[in-house]
Amino acid sequence: MPNPTAAMLVIGDEILSGRTRDANMHHLAGQLTAAGIDLREVRVVSDDRDAIVAAVQALSEAYDAVFTSGGIGPTHDDITADCVAAAFDDPIDIRDDARALLQAHYDRSGMELNAARLRMARIPDSATLIDNPVSTAPGFTIRNVHVMAGVPSVFQAMVATVLPTLKGGAPLLSRTLRVQRGEGDIAGPLGIFANDFSDLSVGSYPYQKDGVYGSNIVVRGQDATRLDDAMLALEKIFTA
Amino acid sequence: MPNPTAAMLVIGDEILSGRTRDANMHHLAGQLTAAGIDLREVRVVSDDRDAIVAAVQALSEAYDAVFTSGGIGPTHDDITADCVAAAFDDPIDIRDDARALLQAHYDRSGMELNAARLRMARIPDSATLIDNPVSTAPGFTIRNVHVMAGVPSVFQAMVATVLPTLKGGAPLLSRTLRVQRGEGDIAGPLGIFANDFSDLSVGSYPYQKDGVYGSNIVVRGQDATRLDDAMLALEKIFTA
Repeated sequence: MPNPTAAMLVIGDEILSGRTRDANMHHLAGQLTAAGIDLREVRVVSDDRDAIVAAVQALSEAYDAVFTSGGIGPTHDDITADCVAAAFDDPIDIRDDARALLQAHYDRSGMELNAARLRMARIPDSATLIDNPVSTAPGFTIRNVHVMAGVPSVFQAMVATVLPTLKGGAPLLSRTLRVQRGEGDIAGPLGIFANDFSDLSVGSYPYQKDGVYGSNIVVRGQDATRLDDAMLALEKIFTA
Repeated sequence: MPNPTAAMLVIGDEILSGRTRDANMHHLAGQLTAAGIDLREVRVVSDDRDAIVAAVQALSEAYDAVFTSGGIGPTHDDITADCVAAAFDDPIDIRDDARALLQAHYDRSGMELNAARLRMARIPDSATLIDNPVSTAPGFTIRNVHVMAGVPSVFQAMVATVLPTLKGGAPLLSRTLRVQRGEGDIAGPLGIFANDFSDLSVGSYPYQKDGVYGSNIVVRGQDATRLDDAMLALEKIFTA
């Protein structure tokens, strides 16, 4: 059976302007691969209502699960929750369960739950909350979309909460053979090998070190024994 | 007049599997911002023909310029050139001008221009070549789509070649005020400020350092004088 599929939607002007380097994509990609869920697409869009709504609808329709990152804080440019609600035509307002979490958190820390912070309790009616052990303000899941914070420590904690609730597949295993020859040298025999092992995914990634070209050949699949066979064949081809 | 818009398409299983961390998005974002071109969207898709064709068509239609990264090497998994040709229904084959570049390069280095390396001369009929000063194999431009290598040093060299040929706008300037207060504290007055300066883009990016929450307030716009006015107003609000 094929693995479940997933997409990620990164929301934030700061990444598209080059101010900030996204860190969440790489983290999520590794976690999903380990869980046997195929990350098929990532989109990065700006803090723009129409762009967010359209992307949420398109990705939710096309993939089994969608993970969003960013735009759920207390400031005026945090519009993700309202956009996701709009994408599914779900009512959204300050919800009692989320407000109670925030109230307890700010009471403990002696800070005021002001109007801005209350915005973080805006949750669509039909969503379930995602726990935030780092800074309390929750994420949420609505249909197959998991809405999470952009701050990496919070994003990672939310991924850790959500992933075990999802149906995964067989984890994708990978093996790498590093060959000190350029891609142009190995491409012919590698193409024949990839054809012989067409049930596996075979990729080639060039590198250059101290002026010498080399290639990392990566073979991916779900069956460890089959991968071992492939690597033996590969070594025979390229270390002969 | 609004600035020209752009999108980026990153092609590669290795990024979606978490094996490699993309470096080209951040570079392109910074370069486009400096050139006054608004990067509105980034998509990352796998080495899948249908996914690449659909993304090229959608982004080419929606934005003034599209930059792709990855999949133009000599190995079997390098399918970008053929997919871009298919997206525009343009014939593709080994082209004489690209072959001549490669032939001269491999003659110089005493290596064979074998069948695999010749794949890098597959260029759509109506495309123009993009110079590759690092490793010769060219990128190409077809309509508003610029097809470039995934290897960061080559990608950056190709961006440097293409960017001066594009019509830019006024560069987007940005100023940052670092405030040692959490977003929940500043969100109220910041929202009023953003409304007062609605001709500028105002973003807030939280940070946490040594257990203390703070916010970077970033104001972006094209008019330096207007930005100075905004920063004076902002300092008055948050350092009073």
